[in-house]
Amino acid sequence: MSLSRSILLGGVAASLAAGAVLAAAHGNSAAEAAIKARQAHMSLYSFNIGTLGGMAKGAVEYDAAKASAAAANILALSKLDQSGYWVEGSSTDDMMETDALPAIWTDMADFNKKMENLTAAATTMEGAAGQGLEALQTSMKELGGACGACHKAYRKPE
Amino acid sequence: MSLSRSILLGGVAASLAAGAVLAAAHGNSAAEAAIKARQAHMSLYSFNIGTLGGMAKGAVEYDAAKASAAAANILALSKLDQSGYWVEGSSTDDMMETDALPAIWTDMADFNKKMENLTAAATTMEGAAGQGLEALQTSMKELGGACGACHKAYRKPE
Repeated sequence: MSLSRSILLGGVAASLAAGAVLAAAHGNSAAEAAIKARQAHMSLYSFNIGTLGGMAKGAVEYDAAKASAAAANILALSKLDQSGYWVEGSSTDDMMETDALPAIWTDMADFNKKMENLTAAATTMEGAAGQGLEALQTSMKELGGACGACHKAYRKPE
Repeated sequence: MSLSRSILLGGVAASLAAGAVLAAAHGNSAAEAAIKARQAHMSLYSFNIGTLGGMAKGAVEYDAAKASAAAANILALSKLDQSGYWVEGSSTDDMMETDALPAIWTDMADFNKKMENLTAAATTMEGAAGQGLEALQTSMKELGGACGACHKAYRKPE
């Protein structure tokens, strides 16, 4: 409110200064929104992979329907349009809230390739998850590998 | 670590006590995982509805491709299997971290109907979003209405 008033009341200098503040605030909130969405997306992968992983490890009884549903979720998530996620200024170089390394932006073609590998692995899992525990366990290797390959290259180590 | 040791070293009483602790921890963490997934799911709706809403309000220039992608994301999200989200003991009666009212569990049929209404509204939006700003704006009413109807009935007021 006081910012709007200063634009109304002020001259060119005040207007420019306010414009810079607004631009910074806008840029920041766009990056924050993108980071939040990326992390939400990862949380949903994690939730569904947790279902499959629990069965694969024998911590939870194998359930073909639940396994298939979790695998279908992962596949659908991998196919969401994610072009809004990778806004400039939202890497670990820019923000505290993210583990997304700057290499994502410099190696975007490889990054996208690794995303495609995830969709491929999720497709395999979607076909396998309902076909018995062994099929699920075998596909977990490919799916876990696809997750890990991207994390290793593009996520800040803990 | 010390819990495992106490089981190894202790007698039946210690083992039972540890078992109760583990069961409580497991129950709690299942509810927490479900809450986190629900909120992540909502964050992804919000991110994509933000794209559409920004255009509808004129805050962001209309872009048919981006609008279509956001609408397709919302539709795909609405179709994810969400049966793992509504675990017993994860309402506002049980946990601090959630705004999910107990009525979800007592009125599950109506709750599911409202979810179906969201999918219907998202389907309309997916068809409309790329057809121009006016079509998008018209569909925002149905989509916003579907969001709001569920929030009003089943989300704790702020």
